Amino acid sequence: MLNSIKSTIPSMEQRKSQINLLNFMEQEKLQQRRDSNSEFLFPDDNLLHKRRPSQADHSATQSEDDENFASFESYMVIEFDKSINRDALYWIIDKIRKKKSDGGAQLIIRSEPCLSDERGLIIHISATKLRLLEIADEIGFTKPTKNGLRSFNIGSLDDFIFDGMSMDDILTPADKQFVIKHALENIKARENERFLPGCAAVSLYHGQSIIHAAIQEELIVNMYSLHNKEFMKRLGTEWWNLRHLFKRQPIEKIRKYFGDGIAFYFSFVEYYTISLMIPTFLGLLQYTFGDGESSPFFFCSYVIWMTVFLEVWKRKQSVMAYKWGTLSLTNVELPRPEYYGKIGRDPITGKMTPQYPLYKTQIQVYFVSVPVIVLCTIGAIFLTLFTIYLEDYFILQYGLESYITMIPSIIQSILVAVLTVFYDRFATYLTVMENHRTQSQFERHRVNKLIVLEFVNNFFSLFYIAFIKQDMKNLQNQLLTQMIVLQFVQNAQEFLVPKFKQKYILWFCCGDVYKQLENDDKNDTKSIQSNYDDLNILQLEENDPRIKQNLRESAKDEYNTYDDYLELYIQFGYVSLFSSITPAAAFWALFNNFFEIRLDAYKLCKTFRRPFARRQKNIGAWHLAFEALACISIMSNCAILYLSPQVKELTEGMSTELKLILFVGLEHFLLLLAWIIHKAINDRPSSVRIALAKADYESKQALKRELVKNKIN
Amino acid sequence: MLNSIKSTIPSMEQRKSQINLLNFMEQEKLQQRRDSNSEFLFPDDNLLHKRRPSQADHSATQSEDDENFASFESYMVIEFDKSINRDALYWIIDKIRKKKSDGGAQLIIRSEPCLSDERGLIIHISATKLRLLEIADEIGFTKPTKNGLRSFNIGSLDDFIFDGMSMDDILTPADKQFVIKHALENIKARENERFLPGCAAVSLYHGQSIIHAAIQEELIVNMYSLHNKEFMKRLGTEWWNLRHLFKRQPIEKIRKYFGDGIAFYFSFVEYYTISLMIPTFLGLLQYTFGDGESSPFFFCSYVIWMTVFLEVWKRKQSVMAYKWGTLSLTNVELPRPEYYGKIGRDPITGKMTPQYPLYKTQIQVYFVSVPVIVLCTIGAIFLTLFTIYLEDYFILQYGLESYITMIPSIIQSILVAVLTVFYDRFATYLTVMENHRTQSQFERHRVNKLIVLEFVNNFFSLFYIAFIKQDMKNLQNQLLTQMIVLQFVQNAQEFLVPKFKQKYILWFCCGDVYKQLENDDKNDTKSIQSNYDDLNILQLEENDPRIKQNLRESAKDEYNTYDDYLELYIQFGYVSLFSSITPAAAFWALFNNFFEIRLDAYKLCKTFRRPFARRQKNIGAWHLAFEALACISIMSNCAILYLSPQVKELTEGMSTELKLILFVGLEHFLLLLAWIIHKAINDRPSSVRIALAKADYESKQALKRELVKNKIN
Repeated sequence: MLNSIKSTIPSMEQRKSQINLLNFMEQEKLQQRRDSNSEFLFPDDNLLHKRRPSQADHSATQSEDDENFASFESYMVIEFDKSINRDALYWIIDKIRKKKSDGGAQLIIRSEPCLSDERGLIIHISATKLRLLEIADEIGFTKPTKNGLRSFNIGSLDDFIFDGMSMDDILTPADKQFVIKHALENIKARENERFLPGCAAVSLYHGQSIIHAAIQEELIVNMYSLHNKEFMKRLGTEWWNLRHLFKRQPIEKIRKYFGDGIAFYFSFVEYYTISLMIPTFLGLLQYTFGDGESSPFFFCSYVIWMTVFLEVWKRKQSVMAYKWGTLSLTNVELPRPEYYGKIGRDPITGKMTPQYPLYKTQIQVYFVSVPVIVLCTIGAIFLTLFTIYLEDYFILQYGLESYITMIPSIIQSILVAVLTVFYDRFATYLTVMENHRTQSQFERHRVNKLIVLEFVNNFFSLFYIAFIKQDMKNLQNQLLTQMIVLQFVQNAQEFLVPKFKQKYILWFCCGDVYKQLENDDKNDTKSIQSNYDDLNILQLEENDPRIKQNLRESAKDEYNTYDDYLELYIQFGYVSLFSSITPAAAFWALFNNFFEIRLDAYKLCKTFRRPFARRQKNIGAWHLAFEALACISIMSNCAILYLSPQVKELTEGMSTELKLILFVGLEHFLLLLAWIIHKAINDRPSSVRIALAKADYESKQALKRELVKNKIN
Repeated sequence: MLNSIKSTIPSMEQRKSQINLLNFMEQEKLQQRRDSNSEFLFPDDNLLHKRRPSQADHSATQSEDDENFASFESYMVIEFDKSINRDALYWIIDKIRKKKSDGGAQLIIRSEPCLSDERGLIIHISATKLRLLEIADEIGFTKPTKNGLRSFNIGSLDDFIFDGMSMDDILTPADKQFVIKHALENIKARENERFLPGCAAVSLYHGQSIIHAAIQEELIVNMYSLHNKEFMKRLGTEWWNLRHLFKRQPIEKIRKYFGDGIAFYFSFVEYYTISLMIPTFLGLLQYTFGDGESSPFFFCSYVIWMTVFLEVWKRKQSVMAYKWGTLSLTNVELPRPEYYGKIGRDPITGKMTPQYPLYKTQIQVYFVSVPVIVLCTIGAIFLTLFTIYLEDYFILQYGLESYITMIPSIIQSILVAVLTVFYDRFATYLTVMENHRTQSQFERHRVNKLIVLEFVNNFFSLFYIAFIKQDMKNLQNQLLTQMIVLQFVQNAQEFLVPKFKQKYILWFCCGDVYKQLENDDKNDTKSIQSNYDDLNILQLEENDPRIKQNLRESAKDEYNTYDDYLELYIQFGYVSLFSSITPAAAFWALFNNFFEIRLDAYKLCKTFRRPFARRQKNIGAWHLAFEALACISIMSNCAILYLSPQVKELTEGMSTELKLILFVGLEHFLLLLAWIIHKAINDRPSSVRIALAKADYESKQALKRELVKNKIN
């Protein structure tokens, strides 16, 4: 944390460099305007600003910088509700473009020409390079310099430009998106702004995020950002192009474009897939040479693999987080838009914010959510048991061959599918009721609920076959079938459904506009007379490519890493829970993931909206979920081993009691072993620890020097 | 961490207050000199400095401040080896008293008059108040101000003086001792000082602690500090006086005098003793109403008690550590004096320090220490087994009544006692071989070894009786006997042995000098002509009370919390491991601890040297040791329950397999429950978390303001 301070106190030298760079930026801007003719994204100056002269007098808050919107990337798109009150709309837009000193975000906005009466006002948001860097300084990004990572400081800008970088390269595309989102979310109500002008029903409190309030009240129906087509094209060829199937993923580029959260996901899948080679190899050995005597050996190897795999990931994760400057991130997040409470003085900042007592959240968690989840679990168990008994009954009644015996299985499959959708909504509902303050708390609690429910949903029937029916042959078949079918269905579903959905929305909901835009060559696009001309917002050109891009991308779904992690979690369960008798599972998982990575990548780039970049230092609640699975699989495998016919042969003559004690002993030993491995492997490799300690030491030394200097003065 | 930064950048206001306070200090000094006649510790000016005029010219490095040593407390006593080389001695003493700017510690020293040829030079060390505060600023203490805790900063001194405090109250006696020790340890060799002058064999490296080097080479045979008799007298009446038997301990005062480490120990014992009331009450209930059916209920209650007890301690601990300003302490310790390695560039500070590769330490830990400890454990198990078999054999041969059957028990008891001493040394030796860099690493590894060895030493025979012999009656008797005898022996031993030892040393080793000093009234003490007169060190008066005090205290043992914690650890084992059948154990522990606290307090004050204050934020490795015991006791109690005749009756008719699975299930459930309690109770109460977040927020805000100010300038 300390290293973030060192650089925020600019020395004289730094201040000089700042002045130099501001000059440099002015020159660059001129150069850019001269160059803009030749670029795809920066069309001819002449095409733009037809309306400009007539509006210049009104938009006093817009600086000279935003003359040429086409030369700025559109970082964010906001779609207002059709029926929004004029005053409110004007007020919000004014807040976005007003100068920082007037309490605005000082961003640049352009509206889209109105193409259909069906949609509300759509605005594109951008910012000057200087403004982006200013906000980045406020946020406190950690960025590389020639001499290692440092907290980004606009005062010593030239330290962050090295090795042929331009000023534009300091912030990655993900950073820029994050910066704009941060700036928008940080437009806060002032002390005297008690409600939204024109909407007295929407009350505000001092310091509330206005954009959050508008989203909460559905005055803003959409806020997302457009893909950077150029960057994505370059990323795609390296990432999901089949020619690169055997290469490592370009994680650095993924992070630059999608942010840390998604980069962590893809990095985790890749690492997990490579790690799966070990159990695949062990499985092959077991399949070829394995017999009853060797199965405890293989089993112990699996346990060690699982534990080491998860521990080594933590180390890799911390190396990445360090390199990406998020390792020492503390969660000083804005409250979630949905967070509510009585307005009161915040004990930390002393500002007036909604205060919801923690004990109420805890009561909700422990006395509502936990019992409900337990009840759901019990319900799911009874449902599964019921279908199993029904199946047995049908087999007894109609014989093994009759088609009627398949009915319960079909019912069960449908139930699992329905329950998955239901669980997702239900867990979200329960977590919303808990009213967590920050997004990360919210997500952790939601994920925790879902992994319990999904565990029962996916694995209970296997446990039943293994330990009640004790039918190992059936277990093997059932597990592999369930696993392969699930993976196939999931892949097909996540690939095809969004595509169809998108097409459907485009053709049936925005049909006219879409068709109109598709006929590029005919050039007969005609904008309807806009209702919003009186707002004095500069408009995009009617043939600006971003309008069409926006129409297409607005129909796309929002991406969330949750579904992809859940898939991995369930797969890891299939691989680990009964690993001692299903050595083939690891192979199938490896085979699937090999393609899954590229499919996920393609899906992310092509069928989803550009997700918001998130700053993360780890994979969050999922690590605990994987660790819990690893722990349960130690127990389940010990039990499987105890029941296996080979081991039964080996231990013939022993009393049942001794045999059981032996296996309980083995289980405890393995749990202890896992715990020791967990403790013995440091979460951060020494390189990271040394780098952190060094940064800490240096900043302390710098502060000391500064102190001495101050004393002398 | 950040809150330590805020205050180290003094504003103009702070600087002004600094100047004011320096003036104020000058005045206070004068006043003090005027007042010094009336104080016990500050005798008449006239008695002092007989030699001063003749030495003033030589001691150019001593400032005017140290004229009157009697008015300064003697914070540290250093005894040099008799045979130390003159040049080395002179050089070290010079380093201690030289000015800071000349690379010295700028402390004040006085030698003791030489009373016997047997002892080397003994010097007393003190410092001016200003110097103490200066060093405290360097160390970075966290101290209370009117507006909460802040990093101590001499630049804004008056913030730390409030509510009628004097400047002397800012630092506690423990702080002052810590400050002097820190200053001494931080006298470092310069780049050109490659060996100790006069001792070419003692090589130094740039930045090495000279005092550490001298201790390592046994040129300094003793370094300790004298008790502050006045403070201790006041503390004693509140603490170990029997009239206060039913009152809480004065933990704040204990911390002020003995430092955080010892305050944590006494706070922990007190909390543990109060907590013992719950199992005592449960035990009483079980004894009165308990039957076979209710024992699982009692057992579960014990498990919940143990887990909650340990978790709540963590919270209490963090509240204390926050209040004491050590919560955000990071271990940036000096290397241990014994730490060795090739001199190389430190990766963090870039300075030349001994570098011992971490992998070598790890190899030593995992391939030497761990196997050796395992072997020792196995050895101890076999020894115990052997004596048990021998006993059985003697009973068979000579009958139950014969005295000869007691021989194995006696041998066993002697062995346990001998092994305890041996283990202590052995664990220390093994840990020394591992060559850990810091004292806290060293102690953690040492404690970890010892708790394993002591566990086997104390509890293995009980496990044998419980699970191999399955003789529950015998287990109950054996456990209570072992526990009560051990507690009695330990208390007697720790109370009497140091007393006798001290007397022995005083009478037989320093006999003449001691007798001479005892005859106060005769006033015929005569100092021998000192060998060290040419060193130009001012001498203490021959009747300075500190000389006699030093002689007495130098004969005392050094105190270490280790033995006291070990006692608690073993006691907690007796209470928890077989709690389901020995409900009386908790009562005996409660009874014992009630007196033990006062006994420990008396012992610490009366029979030990004043221990060095240590800055700590928790009880270190011991918490893990207690948690491990709690975890093992869940397992052992489940097994005891399974074997108990009441439960056997209850489960009659069940198959052995089902019964065992039931108990394994219970055990897993309880382990899970303990884990959930562990996770659900936050280690830091929300008050502490809010206070930390607030400090963090405020320092960030201050930095932001500072940054804005700098930008404007």
